[in-house]
Amino acid sequence: MYEGIKGFSDVYPEEMAAYRAVIDTIEDTARGYGFREIATPAMEPAEMYIDKSGEEIVEELYAFEDRGGRQVALTPELTPTVARMVAARAQELPKPIKWFSTRPFWRYEEPQQGRFREFYQMNVDIFGSEEPDADAEILAVGADMLTGLGLDADDFEFRVSHRDILGELLRSFDADVDVREAIRAVDKSEKVEYNEYVGLLVEAGLSDDQAETFVDLLDAGNDDLDELVAFTDDVEPAVENLSAVLDAAADFGVREYCTLSLETARGLDYYTGVVFECFDAEGEISRAIFGGGRYDDLIESYGGPSLPAVGVAPGVMNSTLPLLLQRAGVWPEEALTTDYYVLRVGDTRDVAARIARQLRERGHVVESDVSGRSFGAQLGYADSINAETVVIVGERDLADGEITLRDMDSGEQVGVPLDEFPGDHERPTFDDFA
Amino acid sequence: MYEGIKGFSDVYPEEMAAYRAVIDTIEDTARGYGFREIATPAMEPAEMYIDKSGEEIVEELYAFEDRGGRQVALTPELTPTVARMVAARAQELPKPIKWFSTRPFWRYEEPQQGRFREFYQMNVDIFGSEEPDADAEILAVGADMLTGLGLDADDFEFRVSHRDILGELLRSFDADVDVREAIRAVDKSEKVEYNEYVGLLVEAGLSDDQAETFVDLLDAGNDDLDELVAFTDDVEPAVENLSAVLDAAADFGVREYCTLSLETARGLDYYTGVVFECFDAEGEISRAIFGGGRYDDLIESYGGPSLPAVGVAPGVMNSTLPLLLQRAGVWPEEALTTDYYVLRVGDTRDVAARIARQLRERGHVVESDVSGRSFGAQLGYADSINAETVVIVGERDLADGEITLRDMDSGEQVGVPLDEFPGDHERPTFDDFA
Repeated sequence: MYEGIKGFSDVYPEEMAAYRAVIDTIEDTARGYGFREIATPAMEPAEMYIDKSGEEIVEELYAFEDRGGRQVALTPELTPTVARMVAARAQELPKPIKWFSTRPFWRYEEPQQGRFREFYQMNVDIFGSEEPDADAEILAVGADMLTGLGLDADDFEFRVSHRDILGELLRSFDADVDVREAIRAVDKSEKVEYNEYVGLLVEAGLSDDQAETFVDLLDAGNDDLDELVAFTDDVEPAVENLSAVLDAAADFGVREYCTLSLETARGLDYYTGVVFECFDAEGEISRAIFGGGRYDDLIESYGGPSLPAVGVAPGVMNSTLPLLLQRAGVWPEEALTTDYYVLRVGDTRDVAARIARQLRERGHVVESDVSGRSFGAQLGYADSINAETVVIVGERDLADGEITLRDMDSGEQVGVPLDEFPGDHERPTFDDFA
Repeated sequence: MYEGIKGFSDVYPEEMAAYRAVIDTIEDTARGYGFREIATPAMEPAEMYIDKSGEEIVEELYAFEDRGGRQVALTPELTPTVARMVAARAQELPKPIKWFSTRPFWRYEEPQQGRFREFYQMNVDIFGSEEPDADAEILAVGADMLTGLGLDADDFEFRVSHRDILGELLRSFDADVDVREAIRAVDKSEKVEYNEYVGLLVEAGLSDDQAETFVDLLDAGNDDLDELVAFTDDVEPAVENLSAVLDAAADFGVREYCTLSLETARGLDYYTGVVFECFDAEGEISRAIFGGGRYDDLIESYGGPSLPAVGVAPGVMNSTLPLLLQRAGVWPEEALTTDYYVLRVGDTRDVAARIARQLRERGHVVESDVSGRSFGAQLGYADSINAETVVIVGERDLADGEITLRDMDSGEQVGVPLDEFPGDHERPTFDDFA
């Protein structure tokens, strides 16, 4: 027997029913904000990632030479692809461009809880606005997705930070500091011990004293951003931008989910302004649930015009979001639902098929026998698919012009004249005829 | 500027809106029959295809060695994967197993009209019934998808055939015939000249005379299957099975879409019984739109129990189905739709955001300004996204406790008291207040 590949998932119907409910909720939320669905290729030229993404992603790339001798890669993330698509039509697309999509991505990582080599992610992005309102709308759509799934402010928090605050603070030290490397150190700060964190900052070019001052500053800034401006005026524009985003988030009704957290930096190099990560507010899930932020320089770097951008990317299947939903007790039920099972007894296929068709035309989920099975076997199957109502179409009943409705919850049955079913009823059940 | 890979598509929102309408229709149809959604990996061990699929697929495989040294392949089709999944849980899954999914697949083919290297396909399969009703249900769900999309019997036909009729006819000749190769020749019969077709049959082991007799027999059988039984009794079970499937299709209301076409054979080796292909009834699109059939031996060949199976796989994006829908004039409109644009004038973000939120809570698509733009620029944008109603939230109006509704079709406007909007209205428009 063949086995699937490690880090890739087979999702069976019960589990998929739960995922589908989650995907529908978050996609409907994005649609409600006017984000428009796009579809994107699973494969891109490998150099797109090698040139632009962080080294972490390149190390995990599924890259290979295709039959035409081209170096290609399975997409490990969407941003380079949407950047390419925006750049290709930057002139003709009305701004802001608001796009979403939900699809799998691939990274050769070591599988662990909530982390797979194939994972499904939704990407929601706004291109063409540098205003704080755009950052706040991204926070709002992200928060609305989670509240739409049944989570509240006790369940999750958005830890909000700003790349330029980190950058200006780092640059303000009298040191030859590699800002990009130092920001990567900040990104790791929650995962490592204090000494290791300081060590990483020193490796990036700060002295020991400067590194400790920097760590203290971030801590103080979380309580009062003015402390940072007092340290160096250079952070003032970034501080004002971050404050404006949080003010807009208040107007958009999602300020309560946002916590100032300057230690949040995001792992990818291309972020430029506000960045944020969603965390389990109870701390049971230690890794970030998802994240997002502003990346104003990326479109231009792909050959497009200068076009500011901000986005968020919640994981769906094979990610940490299901863990949070399960932890909070709002994971949708993993169960099949069926409105009707049309049960055939004897040679009644034509009538049973007509009834099934009429019920389907009313938008219901209707199964019927395709295996030539006995009454008992059909009833057992109807039970296994959680059919609400069984419509029994029997030869003898039909001779009397009747069918029988069985309520599967109670087991009660009632005879119904064939010419009254389904008749004018949109969703006829036992109760309508009892 | 980077370019995407040849044979892969970037799908922008307008086009995607049409695809989404198509996907929703065909998925809803499958759900209505009780097919359950699954999700499946994009990658499988390469040997799964090398061992089991036809050589045509292996030649087109995107196969490579992953970072762990394993030979892997991007999935060129779903059947081996679902066979693996069914085999892995064959005992516990209630039968029949009815699954569907919609997702991309990859084949290194030469791109042409309606054929891409990345294409989206829906797979709909029933496992665990060898009854003709199961074959007919697959025909019915396939036909209902197309009629649901607005096609009728003048637009498409299912050319229905039977692998065992072909096989038994071929075996009935006194010749050492390679049945598999001969069936591949039948599969090509519509694409090549008569002489080449006969030549391929001769290569498979028939004499010239036998090949011509075989071709004539198929032609005669299309008019009257009894002609085949008269030639050899060995085809009788297959003829009876095919007739029973068509009888069931009649009860299921889809017989009118089915044409007997024994030249239809399907390219893949694993089919065993009834096979069919959907064609443009007007012949404008010469290639098959999609196909399906019975493959009773495949699950066992993957190490599972003996479990009969039948399925159909309509292409969606990057396939021939959109060509048929366009040819028939039922391709959904490629346009954005927006229920409301909430336009801000002056410092009214808090009120505008509250209104936008209330309208979204009623299930509407609502955009608002995130770019700090002028009245005129906002109105132009609202027009570009086809907003039906613009809600103008202006500073001066608000001072009078009013907002303004603008119907974008007519350009008419009406003032509305702020505290009545949206109020009890589920979908308030100009007409409600004019």
